[in-house]
Amino acid sequence: MKLIYSEDHRGHAGAKEMRYDQMIPMSECPERMDIILAGLADAGFSDIVPPNAHGFETVHQIHDPNFVSFLERCYPLWEAEFGPGGFATAYVFGMRGMAQVPNQSVHSMLSCYTFDVCAPFVDGTWQAICSAKDSALTGADLMQQGEQAVFSVCRPAGHHAMKDMAGGYCYLNNAAIAAQQHLNNGAKRVAILDMDYHHGNGTQSIFYDRADVLYASLHCRPEDEYPFLMGYATEVGEGDGKGYNLNLPMPRGTKFDVWGPALECALARIQAYAPDVLVISLGVDAFAGDPVGGFELQSDDFLSAGRMIAKAGLPTHFIMEGGYELEALGRNVANVITGYEEG
Amino acid sequence: MKLIYSEDHRGHAGAKEMRYDQMIPMSECPERMDIILAGLADAGFSDIVPPNAHGFETVHQIHDPNFVSFLERCYPLWEAEFGPGGFATAYVFGMRGMAQVPNQSVHSMLSCYTFDVCAPFVDGTWQAICSAKDSALTGADLMQQGEQAVFSVCRPAGHHAMKDMAGGYCYLNNAAIAAQQHLNNGAKRVAILDMDYHHGNGTQSIFYDRADVLYASLHCRPEDEYPFLMGYATEVGEGDGKGYNLNLPMPRGTKFDVWGPALECALARIQAYAPDVLVISLGVDAFAGDPVGGFELQSDDFLSAGRMIAKAGLPTHFIMEGGYELEALGRNVANVITGYEEG
Repeated sequence: MKLIYSEDHRGHAGAKEMRYDQMIPMSECPERMDIILAGLADAGFSDIVPPNAHGFETVHQIHDPNFVSFLERCYPLWEAEFGPGGFATAYVFGMRGMAQVPNQSVHSMLSCYTFDVCAPFVDGTWQAICSAKDSALTGADLMQQGEQAVFSVCRPAGHHAMKDMAGGYCYLNNAAIAAQQHLNNGAKRVAILDMDYHHGNGTQSIFYDRADVLYASLHCRPEDEYPFLMGYATEVGEGDGKGYNLNLPMPRGTKFDVWGPALECALARIQAYAPDVLVISLGVDAFAGDPVGGFELQSDDFLSAGRMIAKAGLPTHFIMEGGYELEALGRNVANVITGYEEG
Repeated sequence: MKLIYSEDHRGHAGAKEMRYDQMIPMSECPERMDIILAGLADAGFSDIVPPNAHGFETVHQIHDPNFVSFLERCYPLWEAEFGPGGFATAYVFGMRGMAQVPNQSVHSMLSCYTFDVCAPFVDGTWQAICSAKDSALTGADLMQQGEQAVFSVCRPAGHHAMKDMAGGYCYLNNAAIAAQQHLNNGAKRVAILDMDYHHGNGTQSIFYDRADVLYASLHCRPEDEYPFLMGYATEVGEGDGKGYNLNLPMPRGTKFDVWGPALECALARIQAYAPDVLVISLGVDAFAGDPVGGFELQSDDFLSAGRMIAKAGLPTHFIMEGGYELEALGRNVANVITGYEEG
């Protein structure tokens, strides 16, 4: 399986995140990519191809162009005000009764275009964002050219990114952009299966009123876990999209005996939908001991998950999302791909 | 001048706040009240009366009852989930396209009912909130009974608190509650003059469509300063309230040569309005060197400000808001009151 990867993510590093009463180094760090690539190489996957530079045509089908422009301008504007070396993050948010459209102040932009304190901007953030979306777009193009399965090994992740808001380590929604590119490239229907421990509120929201993209997600119940405000089972889509959004929330502590059948359920819905392409939002933070997670999947369970996905018999585009337990991260990701190739 | 004060604020302590890349002890701390009372005593003001316990009738004219219930229940719900000793704060926010009405999850409540990371909840927060609103309500009642001027020496502050959202160290909007109580007690019109360095987005928002409360604010331009999203000169009120909201934003570094004339301007507008009562949102964080501020007022300038307020010749209800430079805090607050009594 071709791995689409670029070194351009590396400069997106060095910011901190709020964890209760401390600011700690971000769990979402460049080393994750090194570990994932090493794990994949150990399992025999080393056919790395670089992403091709794409423009923003497809991106603008998913995201507000003004928001995309903000992602590019945010850090330079911040640095012009505060000097180099720090990171930009919002700490006040444009909720109801407040301005929703920013002015030329970078503070106003941050408050309108991010929805949490987990989307910091540093000098290398924009370059990393572009490399991730190009990795997603290139994956879609390679599949149009005949690849049956590809893996966009990219960061930052994307599934929390909304049409016009960043959050949860996510800036542009790589999986949504890939799905749109598959449609642009000729697919009639695309399914997105989100395996990340956290609900992909951005992906759900982007396609909520569309029937040409089915979104199915396995995640921790939002009553107890980020993003709290979305991911409930009652959210089934609206308008044309009604019935094309499937949330399968599970309690903290969930093991494979419950998670596995939920995956079967999602895959059954996906097969009934008969998509031309299956996009996998591949988070492995459902792993037991993940510092940002609360499920209890074991490494072998990811092998099983890969096999189950393969049984759906669909052209499959894996896109990297979360996973922060660095010891097992490489093995867990590689196990999904190994299981898929065996399955 | 009577000072309405209760010790019940003291348990609202011990949380931390995000300042760029660190979590630091909150600038808004119980010691502020000790310093302010000592400064007032030094200046000869020591007629302290306790607030009377009031119900929530007036509070519910200003704030959503469900939000008020959240303020009471937040910390107990948090402690039930995480155990004692910590503090509850939101880190993801219910912006556009997300749930605005919370469910029974305290996370969901925090995300829907706070708009920034600066409104932590500890064990003593609710008791402090109640003592502050009772201090404001009692001040209004004392003025109905004949006092020409009173000072509600209370914390937490209130002017950032919206109808149904906490933020910026504020939970219930004490000044707005006081203004409503003055109306309930027979006033036809109430003016609120907000001297705090930060715009009182909550107070503006609460009265934005009302003509019976004029809001006038001197503050740092929101392009550069919290709360960023409100406080612009173009915000003049709407509907019945059009023309009854006056924002006088000034750049960082502003000294009394600019701030003083802005105060004259606000007072001229207030005198033209001919209110029955003037409520002062008394923040002194415009003081040079305030760790949360950026203006350059000197201690003597607060004496001048008090004299200028007195010249308006109105029954005046001072309510404590911000001010965090602990060395001069007591003197600065006392100077406003001294100037007023001399003026």
